[in-house]
Amino acid sequence: MFSHNQRLQYSVHVHEPNPALANLMLEQFGGPQGELAAAMRYFTQALAEDDPGRRDMLFDIATEELSHLEVIGTMVAMLNKGAKGELAEAVDSEAEMFRKLQGAGNSSHVTQVLYGGGPALINSGGQLWTGGYIDSIGEPTADLRSNIAAEARAKIVYERLINVTDDVGVKDALRFLMTREIAHQQSFEKALYSIDSNFPPGKLAGMPEFADAYVNTSQGEADMRGPWNNDEDFRYVSSREEHLAMDGGDGLGSVKLKSEQKKAVEQMATRLKSNRDVNPVTGAMLGRGENLQPRH
Amino acid sequence: MFSHNQRLQYSVHVHEPNPALANLMLEQFGGPQGELAAAMRYFTQALAEDDPGRRDMLFDIATEELSHLEVIGTMVAMLNKGAKGELAEAVDSEAEMFRKLQGAGNSSHVTQVLYGGGPALINSGGQLWTGGYIDSIGEPTADLRSNIAAEARAKIVYERLINVTDDVGVKDALRFLMTREIAHQQSFEKALYSIDSNFPPGKLAGMPEFADAYVNTSQGEADMRGPWNNDEDFRYVSSREEHLAMDGGDGLGSVKLKSEQKKAVEQMATRLKSNRDVNPVTGAMLGRGENLQPRH
Amino acid sequence: MFSHNQRLQYSVHVHEPNPALANLMLEQFGGPQGELAAAMRYFTQALAEDDPGRRDMLFDIATEELSHLEVIGTMVAMLNKGAKGELAEAVDSEAEMFRKLQGAGNSSHVTQVLYGGGPALINSGGQLWTGGYIDSIGEPTADLRSNIAAEARAKIVYERLINVTDDVGVKDALRFLMTREIAHQQSFEKALYSIDSNFPPGKLAGMPEFADAYVNTSQGEADMRGPWNNDEDFRYVSSREEHLAMDGGDGLGSVKLKSEQKKAVEQMATRLKSNRDVNPVTGAMLGRGENLQPRH
Amino acid sequence: MFSHNQRLQYSVHVHEPNPALANLMLEQFGGPQGELAAAMRYFTQALAEDDPGRRDMLFDIATEELSHLEVIGTMVAMLNKGAKGELAEAVDSEAEMFRKLQGAGNSSHVTQVLYGGGPALINSGGQLWTGGYIDSIGEPTADLRSNIAAEARAKIVYERLINVTDDVGVKDALRFLMTREIAHQQSFEKALYSIDSNFPPGKLAGMPEFADAYVNTSQGEADMRGPWNNDEDFRYVSSREEHLAMDGGDGLGSVKLKSEQKKAVEQMATRLKSNRDVNPVTGAMLGRGENLQPRH
Amino acid sequence: MFSHNQRLQYSVHVHEPNPALANLMLEQFGGPQGELAAAMRYFTQALAEDDPGRRDMLFDIATEELSHLEVIGTMVAMLNKGAKGELAEAVDSEAEMFRKLQGAGNSSHVTQVLYGGGPALINSGGQLWTGGYIDSIGEPTADLRSNIAAEARAKIVYERLINVTDDVGVKDALRFLMTREIAHQQSFEKALYSIDSNFPPGKLAGMPEFADAYVNTSQGEADMRGPWNNDEDFRYVSSREEHLAMDGGDGLGSVKLKSEQKKAVEQMATRLKSNRDVNPVTGAMLGRGENLQPRH
Amino acid sequence: MFSHNQRLQYSVHVHEPNPALANLMLEQFGGPQGELAAAMRYFTQALAEDDPGRRDMLFDIATEELSHLEVIGTMVAMLNKGAKGELAEAVDSEAEMFRKLQGAGNSSHVTQVLYGGGPALINSGGQLWTGGYIDSIGEPTADLRSNIAAEARAKIVYERLINVTDDVGVKDALRFLMTREIAHQQSFEKALYSIDSNFPPGKLAGMPEFADAYVNTSQGEADMRGPWNNDEDFRYVSSREEHLAMDGGDGLGSVKLKSEQKKAVEQMATRLKSNRDVNPVTGAMLGRGENLQPRH
Repeated sequence: MFSHNQRLQYSVHVHEPNPALANLMLEQFGGPQGELAAAMRYFTQALAEDDPGRRDMLFDIATEELSHLEVIGTMVAMLNKGAKGELAEAVDSEAEMFRKLQGAGNSSHVTQVLYGGGPALINSGGQLWTGGYIDSIGEPTADLRSNIAAEARAKIVYERLINVTDDVGVKDALRFLMTREIAHQQSFEKALYSIDSNFPPGKLAGMPEFADAYVNTSQGEADMRGPWNNDEDFRYVSSREEHLAMDGGDGLGSVKLKSEQKKAVEQMATRLKSNRDVNPVTGAMLGRGENLQPRH
Repeated sequence: MFSHNQRLQYSVHVHEPNPALANLMLEQFGGPQGELAAAMRYFTQALAEDDPGRRDMLFDIATEELSHLEVIGTMVAMLNKGAKGELAEAVDSEAEMFRKLQGAGNSSHVTQVLYGGGPALINSGGQLWTGGYIDSIGEPTADLRSNIAAEARAKIVYERLINVTDDVGVKDALRFLMTREIAHQQSFEKALYSIDSNFPPGKLAGMPEFADAYVNTSQGEADMRGPWNNDEDFRYVSSREEHLAMDGGDGLGSVKLKSEQKKAVEQMATRLKSNRDVNPVTGAMLGRGENLQPRH
Repeated sequence: MFSHNQRLQYSVHVHEPNPALANLMLEQFGGPQGELAAAMRYFTQALAEDDPGRRDMLFDIATEELSHLEVIGTMVAMLNKGAKGELAEAVDSEAEMFRKLQGAGNSSHVTQVLYGGGPALINSGGQLWTGGYIDSIGEPTADLRSNIAAEARAKIVYERLINVTDDVGVKDALRFLMTREIAHQQSFEKALYSIDSNFPPGKLAGMPEFADAYVNTSQGEADMRGPWNNDEDFRYVSSREEHLAMDGGDGLGSVKLKSEQKKAVEQMATRLKSNRDVNPVTGAMLGRGENLQPRH
Repeated sequence: MFSHNQRLQYSVHVHEPNPALANLMLEQFGGPQGELAAAMRYFTQALAEDDPGRRDMLFDIATEELSHLEVIGTMVAMLNKGAKGELAEAVDSEAEMFRKLQGAGNSSHVTQVLYGGGPALINSGGQLWTGGYIDSIGEPTADLRSNIAAEARAKIVYERLINVTDDVGVKDALRFLMTREIAHQQSFEKALYSIDSNFPPGKLAGMPEFADAYVNTSQGEADMRGPWNNDEDFRYVSSREEHLAMDGGDGLGSVKLKSEQKKAVEQMATRLKSNRDVNPVTGAMLGRGENLQPRH
Repeated sequence: MFSHNQRLQYSVHVHEPNPALANLMLEQFGGPQGELAAAMRYFTQALAEDDPGRRDMLFDIATEELSHLEVIGTMVAMLNKGAKGELAEAVDSEAEMFRKLQGAGNSSHVTQVLYGGGPALINSGGQLWTGGYIDSIGEPTADLRSNIAAEARAKIVYERLINVTDDVGVKDALRFLMTREIAHQQSFEKALYSIDSNFPPGKLAGMPEFADAYVNTSQGEADMRGPWNNDEDFRYVSSREEHLAMDGGDGLGSVKLKSEQKKAVEQMATRLKSNRDVNPVTGAMLGRGENLQPRH
Repeated sequence: MFSHNQRLQYSVHVHEPNPALANLMLEQFGGPQGELAAAMRYFTQALAEDDPGRRDMLFDIATEELSHLEVIGTMVAMLNKGAKGELAEAVDSEAEMFRKLQGAGNSSHVTQVLYGGGPALINSGGQLWTGGYIDSIGEPTADLRSNIAAEARAKIVYERLINVTDDVGVKDALRFLMTREIAHQQSFEKALYSIDSNFPPGKLAGMPEFADAYVNTSQGEADMRGPWNNDEDFRYVSSREEHLAMDGGDGLGSVKLKSEQKKAVEQMATRLKSNRDVNPVTGAMLGRGENLQPRH
């Protein structure tokens, strides 16, 4: 059960309205690396987690991410507050309003016209938030790795936003939010490595002959060796011929059809046969105005 | 520049047609943890990567994932081959065809009716593949962590598919594909830790007072301590009051408006004021057939 | 700032595992009328709302909807718990696991294979949750109407789920959730009608000559009159001729181009002119094997 | 059966080309509150509606909304006509064309480059139209409320567009379209209240003990009372303790597993147990270059 | 301006309710090859088309496709009518309702529970309709080809549906709809070839040295020659070496940076350098429980 | 099995960084007419194609399109390289960085902030790539037509990009890519017309009485005749009455319900009956502050 206090986790004192900056902030509100994605990622994992410690941690961090969503959403609302009032009350002439809307820049017109200046579940380019951003699969050694990566990505996007913001109040709150991603990443790291034997993830072992092969599929002068394909840990497979049919088979696909199915498939093949011995007149030739030839 | 050989990386000899099994396989063809997502994840990273070693590795693995996409797509095609021919040639009565389509089960009807039995960029539930599955952000210490997590997830989904497949040929190829995810994860791990100082990701440091705080937002009898919030590494903040306005401020949002903007905002507020002192007649009351009272 | 208690708002004691029922429940977890959509709808409105009463109400209800999301997600987790363990541990033969997965029915295979039995942000058909479900536009007389409608829809979907559920524990919790939608609808109704002069929404008045017209565009024997087009409140416009160019103009679209633009447009028109006086040979004719005629 | 007349419902005489204004207009062509969404909302309801009066009304209004889609699409085409010709015929140098495209502003480059200046099923930010915008659920007391809300939203978005448009011809047509939303809202209101006993929607009654409770989940100094939570109509539940397990139970989730399932679940729990007594070395520690400690 | 008659373009007399068949029909209602996609494809083209003949044709066919949408939607409504009434009125026990819902099969549960049996803008797998299905780009020689292809695809999907339908009334209407796609394809073919010089599409000519090359990128024993790569029309380029850098250059990507940019890029490269000479300890090694080695 | 060479199919030497131009290029990377869509279109068709010639051709062209994706992605990376370094290293003040980001124009801010300057699977407006762009249906006479149309569209989008690009290196590579679309279209044309009897597509014939009808649904002064509806090839049906119920029936939808179903449907109809004889008080009247009248 959630409860809410009307004070924010971090105060947001914005220096002045700035719809274009507001729009950039949407990246962490309704964007793929934003706070709703974070909150839902951990919350859905928590619900299905049976281990009591991880479950509690996931609820703790999910709840904090919801509180971050509130902080970033408050920024958006504050940065848009002036423009919102002007548009709703139509205080200027239409020409002046159009000029202001255009002048604000980037994709902030969407937020003004469609969402009335409120924070919306879109990113800074207007892309609607999608459940496809959440990659939880219900297996903790995989999900914790996903969480670690998600925190790392969110940290970077905050860093970029900080680098393009000169409103002191906004920047201060962004630094708080960025810092919390660092803290969360550390908790998820601890949780992952508290599971004995977390690699390879899952229960099934791999096939030994392929688990340490490095298949050098991209070749040329830029071919490089490094820790990720060294001879100590990997079998480096460079021969193009060895890449094919690594099982030693024919490298083909096949299926055993029942006789009626086989007949149907052959009938379809005959009907749709590509006649390789003709050189047919085509629509492109018609389109180019070529001299028509009778078909063979 | 890519090239292609008509032999597969691993042979696929399917025992017998099975449209429902084909449909499950789509999870790793056009699903979020599938091979197209993997290939595109590494390929887009490779294009923007300046470090020569990582760039080569990303192209190597992206190219192999495309080859895996081909293996899994071949399975789907083989498992559907019989049903495809029967539907195209209408070999049975319509009632019989309907019965077969329904009998195959799960969401395989979509693959038959819409895609004609071919592998499509959907998952096993018919959800179209979306670019939202790709979480590359162009920063290697974040992206490599994303790749590690993605390989872990893909390994698990393959494990689940193996657990529900009894076609020997399909299972064999699935085991190969699962194993390669283990190998790839190891390469990405090596690549991440070859970057000196990869934590915290990015260039900006966090705010020290918040970087090690663990905010215990979820409380109750199930509260747990563990490595992820131990006193050695974390400052455990449990008091509800301390969660609010961690900056020590008022926990509010505010913005300085210009006087004309302020006027517009106030005008809007007045126009849309919620009159808290009335108990108005509402649509719900009308809908319930309540005795109408004059307003105010 | 949100906080969380590990007890649910309503206890969920499920009688027995049932993955197909779990899948139906996803409709109210990650579906368009589900609890995440409700929570996000009110939460995003609250952030941009300046009226203190409505703002508080929106936070109250948003927070409760998050708690409902937790209740419904817990149902999903409980109903899937058995199948999840069996799949992860591979306790049966693959053939038996396939049979079980298929036998569960509807789209529950997605939840098992892709999400490992956990609640996911999809609906019962596997469609990913999208921000397009949220229709908040930042104007309270419109948004409150949207909220009233959303509560009505959610009530109905719960009613349908109750009608197809015979697990006593699940049904009991569903009835609670359905009832809360009724309560919320009443609050939103009160809030709407506490705004003086909430119709028409917004500030601009309509054009009087069109604000009460009913345009009878669909005609035939089934034409009906009723309160929605009565002569007391509406001007009933039935003549087809009157439907066209209701402004009394020519009913055309036009634009004044600059002379260079006009020239470019004419050049394009000439280049792409449709020659209406020929009867050209077409690709379809080639495809049908017709005797070819020279063009023109 | 639909038919079409080549004259518009309202004439559209645009003063001069303006691709940025065209792009804003897309909000009501392919946006969530736009005319396609409106038309499809009423059309899909009409098809399944059995009440003859409502069915006729839904077809009437759906057909008119299609005609509005035509009006707004004509605006887009007219506003883009000049730029379209220039781009297709390449009348300027490439540098000049790039300058013009950039200079037009907002997201109008997408319309030019991808759609060639034609109206497309996207909103003003380039987001593709999605069926998720349609919230019809096939129950008239809910659907009519959805329609009322949709008309209110569309009215507001038109009002905002009018406020930023100074092309007299465009503004005139927008005012017509806005006015028609007011008329439609009134028809839907009449239709809703012509159904006896339309609240609560559906057939099932709520649980009396929860149907009038107002759960004060968001607390603090900003707590407010008003018509939406007054003591006359609502039971105001403020105690945090009372919010938990409102059924009087334990507030937990549970399920009765069969013994084999129980065994599988326990086996999984053991395998994935979080060892809370260690303080493991983590990837973050490696990444930070910390002195390694042997693992417990 | 559209108008509507309450009679259908083709009568739909369904033999008996069948929710699973209804669900298959959704493929042509809200699916990618369905009637809404067709109608919107032609309608959006018509709006921006300046050629009077093509414009009239596009409106003619768009309007007819809307009428087909009505026919197919009516089928869905009729096939679901029984189940809809039973679910809304809860005429059976919950267990019986669950059994019926499950028993209907394929993805028909979504239509029942979420949409109340009405036709929805989804395909037969529950995927929401998306504007991404429409590929109009505002150039008639391309768009007419897209329309020809779309009609061909729709014809095939109707053929498949006919092959799995044994309800005589449904099958009859499907055959009508299928036939109309054939007629439309022929009109679009005529329209395409009425444009003189419609190949290559657009205004710019290709580079002669590459316009007739066939690049044999996929090689192996299955290499084939045919009309699509014959020596008469194509230059067959088979040598792997010739595929690289076909411009005769270095086959690399490069950009001239300003000196400050160059410095920033180098600084970033140094910071994120991959150290290829170490063999670092990794998270996977920790996860596998390997004996830790000090780094470097 | 794919392999990769580190040299591009065509060299990309960009003159200078230009993030706005980079953003336009994304249209052909992650847009609907872009190279990923092309590659996936042909690749998925190849996997299910049984005809050996067409299968080889599809793999050839799919592989080349992947190589084009690499070329266009390299352009994006090069054009963004300077801005990427500056943002990552924060070489300027935040105000200066904000100014640069805004100044670049169009939607390039998304690429910088979210994707760090790398090519992403979005189009130039930030819309995520979706599997809905791929229209393969597994029937070659339809799919080849789709491929022909797709090549025509891609050619046009390249032409537009060429028209707005004055960077010589970018323009040169774009011309190569555009030319290859012309070549591919010709191959697909040859392949289509090598199939004997490819029209109508599929196996089922149409109903003769409707296969040549042209239904003149859009009427008015702009009515036009042309090759697409000439009397030689088409039966031109203009009478509105003839458009209705072309089967000669009643133009209605109907279904035979079982008696219990009929009863349920009638019960629902009664419960939800629209009372056409009242003029009810509505929410809009409340909202407008009208004098209330007792109902009925």
